[in-house]
Amino acid sequence: MRLLAMTFALGLDYGTSTVRALIADTADGNVIALSEVPYPHGNDGVIVDPDNPDLARQHPLDYLECGRKAIRTAREEASLSPGDIVGIGVDTTGSTPLPTDARGHPLAFRPDLEEHPAAMAWLWKDHTAASEASELTEAARREEPRFLESTGGSYSPEWFWAKLLRLVRGAPGVIERTAGWIELADWIPAVLTGREAQPVRSACPAGHKGWFHRSWGGYPSPRFLERLDPHLARIRRTLPDRVLPAGCPAGRLTGEWAGATGLRPGTPVSAGILDAHAGAVGCGIREGTLVKILGTSTCDIVVSPLARPLPSIPGLCGIAPDTVLPGHHGLEAGQSAVGDIFHWWVRRIAPGSGAGFTDLERQAEGLAPGESGLLALDWNNGNRSILCDPRLSGLLLGQSLHTGPHEVYRALIEATAFGARAILDRIAEHGVEVRTIVACGGLAERNPLLMRIYADITNRPMRISASPQTCALGAAICGAVAAGVHPDFPTARKRMTRIREECYRPRAHAVAVYDELYRLYRQLHDAFGLPDRRTSLHPVMKRLLEMRDEARRD
Amino acid sequence: MRLLAMTFALGLDYGTSTVRALIADTADGNVIALSEVPYPHGNDGVIVDPDNPDLARQHPLDYLECGRKAIRTAREEASLSPGDIVGIGVDTTGSTPLPTDARGHPLAFRPDLEEHPAAMAWLWKDHTAASEASELTEAARREEPRFLESTGGSYSPEWFWAKLLRLVRGAPGVIERTAGWIELADWIPAVLTGREAQPVRSACPAGHKGWFHRSWGGYPSPRFLERLDPHLARIRRTLPDRVLPAGCPAGRLTGEWAGATGLRPGTPVSAGILDAHAGAVGCGIREGTLVKILGTSTCDIVVSPLARPLPSIPGLCGIAPDTVLPGHHGLEAGQSAVGDIFHWWVRRIAPGSGAGFTDLERQAEGLAPGESGLLALDWNNGNRSILCDPRLSGLLLGQSLHTGPHEVYRALIEATAFGARAILDRIAEHGVEVRTIVACGGLAERNPLLMRIYADITNRPMRISASPQTCALGAAICGAVAAGVHPDFPTARKRMTRIREECYRPRAHAVAVYDELYRLYRQLHDAFGLPDRRTSLHPVMKRLLEMRDEARRD
Repeated sequence: MRLLAMTFALGLDYGTSTVRALIADTADGNVIALSEVPYPHGNDGVIVDPDNPDLARQHPLDYLECGRKAIRTAREEASLSPGDIVGIGVDTTGSTPLPTDARGHPLAFRPDLEEHPAAMAWLWKDHTAASEASELTEAARREEPRFLESTGGSYSPEWFWAKLLRLVRGAPGVIERTAGWIELADWIPAVLTGREAQPVRSACPAGHKGWFHRSWGGYPSPRFLERLDPHLARIRRTLPDRVLPAGCPAGRLTGEWAGATGLRPGTPVSAGILDAHAGAVGCGIREGTLVKILGTSTCDIVVSPLARPLPSIPGLCGIAPDTVLPGHHGLEAGQSAVGDIFHWWVRRIAPGSGAGFTDLERQAEGLAPGESGLLALDWNNGNRSILCDPRLSGLLLGQSLHTGPHEVYRALIEATAFGARAILDRIAEHGVEVRTIVACGGLAERNPLLMRIYADITNRPMRISASPQTCALGAAICGAVAAGVHPDFPTARKRMTRIREECYRPRAHAVAVYDELYRLYRQLHDAFGLPDRRTSLHPVMKRLLEMRDEARRD
Repeated sequence: MRLLAMTFALGLDYGTSTVRALIADTADGNVIALSEVPYPHGNDGVIVDPDNPDLARQHPLDYLECGRKAIRTAREEASLSPGDIVGIGVDTTGSTPLPTDARGHPLAFRPDLEEHPAAMAWLWKDHTAASEASELTEAARREEPRFLESTGGSYSPEWFWAKLLRLVRGAPGVIERTAGWIELADWIPAVLTGREAQPVRSACPAGHKGWFHRSWGGYPSPRFLERLDPHLARIRRTLPDRVLPAGCPAGRLTGEWAGATGLRPGTPVSAGILDAHAGAVGCGIREGTLVKILGTSTCDIVVSPLARPLPSIPGLCGIAPDTVLPGHHGLEAGQSAVGDIFHWWVRRIAPGSGAGFTDLERQAEGLAPGESGLLALDWNNGNRSILCDPRLSGLLLGQSLHTGPHEVYRALIEATAFGARAILDRIAEHGVEVRTIVACGGLAERNPLLMRIYADITNRPMRISASPQTCALGAAICGAVAAGVHPDFPTARKRMTRIREECYRPRAHAVAVYDELYRLYRQLHDAFGLPDRRTSLHPVMKRLLEMRDEARRD
């Protein structure tokens, strides 16, 4: 009787500096063990180049060794017998692709390439492929504009094909030996299941990072890629035409891995999923709920049933089918700086004006909406919400000679909330309604002022996930579904996810004031953010960035 | 033989918190004595109202007692015989008018009114008359639009008629006993010469603060004022139809004052002058030279020969004949916050980011023009240069997550320099050319970075007055001219004023970069500052200020 037997699922969560293994009870989502192992290579696991700040790589050896150790530790902590863990899910950062040989083994495992950065995994935040991303964007604009509709109008330097093209251009000796190019989220399940030579590709990284869409036959055609470089077409021909959503089994655990970790051989392993999307699953994503992962930047995840036609939504950085939940479009949006902006203000600009965050927060809480007279644009790190333009910058308006640091701090929180609302409004215009926001991440738990402001500005109740490990929990849920413990994600969600009791509800007076402030924000947003308007100040912001770059080159 | 005999002139300089007496050699301007006496009433000489931050008054008793003491102290320090001081000049803050009885005695000298704020002198920075100023502006817009052309498009709450109308509205018991209303710059010479009952009025405060212009028959007509309030018309009828430029004698020193101060009875006393204009005289103002008094705010003074027709210059806050030098239009412009903005940033926002001004300055010096990517509007305290709108606010554009406090500090200096250039460009468009800028005030002496940036942005050599007491020296020069020691101001200027050797010359590369930045500044300036453009973001800035006020009222 499955309902009486206790079963558990393992979530393996590959982050930027560590890998976490989490074991959750499939009946109620309770976490009975959690272990975390830092990657030994590089700085906090990231291999950098002092001469090139854009470069960020990881050594694939870390993934295997640390993954094994994390699972083993968690399993020991949980004191379970091997058979109690019935399913395994994997989430990873992404797009984090790596080059392999014909058997699917990383080129970085070859002794002569083990220190070559191009042979390693290209971490999500590697920005070396900027000009290659422009090339891809331009090619799509000319030949396949529909590609761009799925990725917010441009292709990012952080993504799968851009990084591969950079590898082609920058490391001819490595590309000649590259037979495969695989997302970390696909490679880990392939390793666990012994299918490296013919790995399953998951819908999540394929759809959000690889320009995969069934309407145009999967990945971009070899013909399209050939014109950029024959190597791209060659790699394309190694990719499958079908992808699997997370929650579908990618295979079963090999004896070797079972032996090394103390799990049962043959345990089902789910197709991989990107970390943010796993976080959404761990937060209980469903239709009508937006999951907001609040950190230095944010990622917003929404789902919409595949049965309901979804037009392209301009500016949304990713829309693809089956990427979060099967049977649903996954919509991914985000803001390129949130916690980072507050950190910049409190630590870099105004560190001596009080005792830091706590003092500023207390003072900022005493302000009424509109009272500071300030309005800011949240673009200190560009905009990747509905403008999708990294070459934008911050703006602060309304300061007097009496403006205090706490007033600016509050205005910056409000600015990021207006940015969040711009995303909500944009998807609502295209028929995707959000009734509740579930936040997770450190900021959501630590900063009640922020949660209250977000509730008032978005006019939606703001809630917080009960789990501090939503990504690893989401991966475990994928494992439970892949194992058939739960028949589908809605059942798994009801059983295995929880949100906290507390709820920040919009307050009518604040909503009204912020409605007006938001209209003013949108005037600034459009004037500085849209190039194609007569009323545009866009060229002013753009030219300042160019002049900055020119001055720095001199 | 006058050329061989050593003669001296006394300058009496009434500031906001103290009065200074300066004795200068008429042959070379050397200062042989200087004394300063603080006003005993109020906070630093200013009587305030805890319930009304707009109120700022002074007790006229302070002017007399401190003035006497300052002269006596300076004279004793100089060890001169009474006859050696041959002329006296007076400058004061303004518009600082006070109500008098029919004999010209301040109402505040009456025992029952000695503590009534309305009976005191209404200090220049008293802002209680905001709505009365709007009334006057509206009346002029309807009936006498030419009035507004001389005062930059509106009448200021700080000025003569606005304050009188406020007195009418706010203190009926006082206005009933008010027979006269006189600028401090006119009242002091009247007292010194015993002409309080029929005082000379000086061209300088009349032209810049009192809407006096000979083209419309002097002060505004009683008919115009009658519609605002009959008291205004009544006071208007007590005013003369002619005014005198500084440098013309207003009378001769009374025996009583001579006895109290150790000067010679009958010494000529010049007609009064406002402090900024006296400062311009002390800096050696002449055609082609702009004198910039750089402090918490700035005042710019330029002269243009009366013989050359001068159209109205939109946005310039004051143009009037004979107000600085006889035979010249005096042009007054200014920026409502300069040093105040730097102080706000360094002390209020970023006090902990370094060791204050010195550190930030050193770091800011290391930046090239354009390198920070920042651009600011210098409107934290509104704009009184070419927009003449106190209801504007600051703006900072271009910040990233790496922007440092020193970069913002430099951007704020640049913003004030762009504001200075806007004034230069505006008057140049109307045929008044400026070839050199002579700065005075603490900022000019202390802040070489600022001087260099101003030279590069204005594309004019920046020089510094050699005198640290330009206002009092200017007053002394007026005294020397009134006494006939020098036949005219050009002669007095050559003899009695000096500028420092050092000169900040524009550097070609910086000029070119700043030319482009200035064009961007003007785009922001016009978008946020001008209401009548289709491309305007003016309503955004305006509405934020209204919302702030609404929130504060709640």
